[in-house]
Amino acid sequence: MPVVRLTKRVHFSAGHRLCNPALSDDENARLYGKCANPGGHGHNYTLEVTVEGQTDPRTGMVVNFAQLSETIRTEVLDRFDHRNLNTEVEPMRGLVPTAENIAVAIWGLLEPNVAPARLVEVRVAETDMSIATYRGEGDH
Amino acid sequence: MPVVRLTKRVHFSAGHRLCNPALSDDENARLYGKCANPGGHGHNYTLEVTVEGQTDPRTGMVVNFAQLSETIRTEVLDRFDHRNLNTEVEPMRGLVPTAENIAVAIWGLLEPNVAPARLVEVRVAETDMSIATYRGEGDH
Amino acid sequence: MPVVRLTKRVHFSAGHRLCNPALSDDENARLYGKCANPGGHGHNYTLEVTVEGQTDPRTGMVVNFAQLSETIRTEVLDRFDHRNLNTEVEPMRGLVPTAENIAVAIWGLLEPNVAPARLVEVRVAETDMSIATYRGEGDH
Amino acid sequence: MPVVRLTKRVHFSAGHRLCNPALSDDENARLYGKCANPGGHGHNYTLEVTVEGQTDPRTGMVVNFAQLSETIRTEVLDRFDHRNLNTEVEPMRGLVPTAENIAVAIWGLLEPNVAPARLVEVRVAETDMSIATYRGEGDH
Amino acid sequence: MPVVRLTKRVHFSAGHRLCNPALSDDENARLYGKCANPGGHGHNYTLEVTVEGQTDPRTGMVVNFAQLSETIRTEVLDRFDHRNLNTEVEPMRGLVPTAENIAVAIWGLLEPNVAPARLVEVRVAETDMSIATYRGEGDH
Amino acid sequence: MPVVRLTKRVHFSAGHRLCNPALSDDENARLYGKCANPGGHGHNYTLEVTVEGQTDPRTGMVVNFAQLSETIRTEVLDRFDHRNLNTEVEPMRGLVPTAENIAVAIWGLLEPNVAPARLVEVRVAETDMSIATYRGEGDH
Repeated sequence: MPVVRLTKRVHFSAGHRLCNPALSDDENARLYGKCANPGGHGHNYTLEVTVEGQTDPRTGMVVNFAQLSETIRTEVLDRFDHRNLNTEVEPMRGLVPTAENIAVAIWGLLEPNVAPARLVEVRVAETDMSIATYRGEGDH
Repeated sequence: MPVVRLTKRVHFSAGHRLCNPALSDDENARLYGKCANPGGHGHNYTLEVTVEGQTDPRTGMVVNFAQLSETIRTEVLDRFDHRNLNTEVEPMRGLVPTAENIAVAIWGLLEPNVAPARLVEVRVAETDMSIATYRGEGDH
Repeated sequence: MPVVRLTKRVHFSAGHRLCNPALSDDENARLYGKCANPGGHGHNYTLEVTVEGQTDPRTGMVVNFAQLSETIRTEVLDRFDHRNLNTEVEPMRGLVPTAENIAVAIWGLLEPNVAPARLVEVRVAETDMSIATYRGEGDH
Repeated sequence: MPVVRLTKRVHFSAGHRLCNPALSDDENARLYGKCANPGGHGHNYTLEVTVEGQTDPRTGMVVNFAQLSETIRTEVLDRFDHRNLNTEVEPMRGLVPTAENIAVAIWGLLEPNVAPARLVEVRVAETDMSIATYRGEGDH
Repeated sequence: MPVVRLTKRVHFSAGHRLCNPALSDDENARLYGKCANPGGHGHNYTLEVTVEGQTDPRTGMVVNFAQLSETIRTEVLDRFDHRNLNTEVEPMRGLVPTAENIAVAIWGLLEPNVAPARLVEVRVAETDMSIATYRGEGDH
Repeated sequence: MPVVRLTKRVHFSAGHRLCNPALSDDENARLYGKCANPGGHGHNYTLEVTVEGQTDPRTGMVVNFAQLSETIRTEVLDRFDHRNLNTEVEPMRGLVPTAENIAVAIWGLLEPNVAPARLVEVRVAETDMSIATYRGEGDH
């Protein structure tokens, strides 16, 4: 059967402040610029999740889009949407909430939960201009 | 000469939490739902500013787009971008940072500064789905 | 208080075929071109609903976006989404399902249900290229 | 019958250089900044044309979208698309090719050709960030 | 010479209903949810076709975009646009019209027709939220 | 550490005319169609630059988005934005300004300047419909 990729795109809004608590305020400001502003800010994040698998000839589907949406909702949106990524999202604990770290954390949440498909890409856009993509490479 | 409208669209990212400090936590939660989440969240706001005026026959312009951009930058973006709208933005002091209040506050900042054109509309989109538009009507 | 407009943008997918049952197949084909194709086709419709009202100083809101969304869901989306506009949507009965007629029908469903705000515009986009806007003018 | 607005959105790509030949190079540079760069540049213009009229009860249409598209194609796109707006587009002769002047010129081309509907708005976006809107007001 | 990929993005509108005629109505409803609604619905599909090849040093092109557009028009759009994917599109005969099956069917139509370039990806978006991508892997 | 990709999307406006000076006017017209129009035209180009690298555990970043933006600004935008690609952009000298050649030229400008990350993709969209992607394959 053909091997096809399915991508589900969803949105969530969250607050964050880029700072490493182990660094001084000056170091954080130098490193993260306006993203280190003490009061924090936030984004409308766009999340694209891509899975891959064989098309089931009976259903014509790799996985059910509705089921994939439900997985993303329970694993990601219920934890991230309308939350503060520095203080309120358990899977981000101890991580600077950069787009890179968000993508890797979401990979960890979804990877065990998309069978029989296989997770191949997590893409996190902070804005239309700044996007991180993780494909499971390296230690995570 | 023809009377033409010019619209400049810009983006800023800010944090906010919908809550009225005069209300109890329960009342705020009932009123604002997940937008009242204590840690706050944030958005990529899209701001559209529309001015109107006669086209200058020498230049073919109502106002210079570059000059309008500069006005928006100094009056709005320098105050709102990468800030917390509840605590760090002077023109929002004492206001619940709803899209409605943001639009009216931005009107107040821009209206005196776009001559010889005339401000006719300020449009603030929190997300692609939720937009407030202010045209200077009512007391502000 | 300031008078502000709120716009809520939502999406629905529906099937339709442009044809007036009172006309012959030839007349329908001449009138509607490929949109009269017998098997029907469909669109991802974008619906923008705009209401207007005074900002409540206690809440900073004209109406609650969540409540407006809920009204649109029950009055429009539950009836139109994933339906055939020629045969399955009661408020479209007897109407050719053009963007114009869809906009007017949706006005009729929403207008009595957005108080204390006032409905000022219903905008229906069949595609990014073809949009109908109704503001309550004329008989409907 | 209800009075409805129809908007048709189309795209064209054109070259232009902002300069008034009656001014010196220095004056043009001061006035138009990088837009006065001698070699010229260009844009993907988005044009939105809005007409208004009563819905015909037999067809459910104000005007046929296909007919409106055809009018825009012959009156505008055939003249503007893939052309140099300073030198090759007759209706722009003698005009600095600003978004304002383009919108007014297109109004003049379309206004006599959309009956039985009535032209109510021409909107020209040079980029997503810079938009001119003409509604037929003032001399043109 | 450099090996470059070209992507052409086009749109078509079509009707469909997700159902496998070999299954009962109940099974179809359980499998496809609202997408199995008997009257059918439809979408504005976005199709992205990507080919790869060496840039011709004389022309600076891998293939002519205009020629690629023409191939997509005759092979795909003339068959799919404004059609019912369950009943009127020959290459979809016997297939449940999921995004997965549409992508694979379009691969089959285009793959023999893009020489001297090589087809590398067909991407079908039912909505901005739900996308299938086929790269020719597995049996098809 | 995880290996993550970062994509920065920016815009520039430029003029161009597709023609190979070594060919006759007739040959250029046959080859490039309306894109060979003598007066030239132009586009709002969208450029997406993707780099790859290990996330630094101290910063949570592969590279600083601000630094990547600055590199793109100095290497690409300062040379291409509001310029004529046939006559005014040194890295395009002697090349027909197709999307393919622009992508390869931009690769050459950025590839030495994104360490410690590694350039993996340059994507140039002339319009939403026509996109060239270069990944460093073949001679350049």
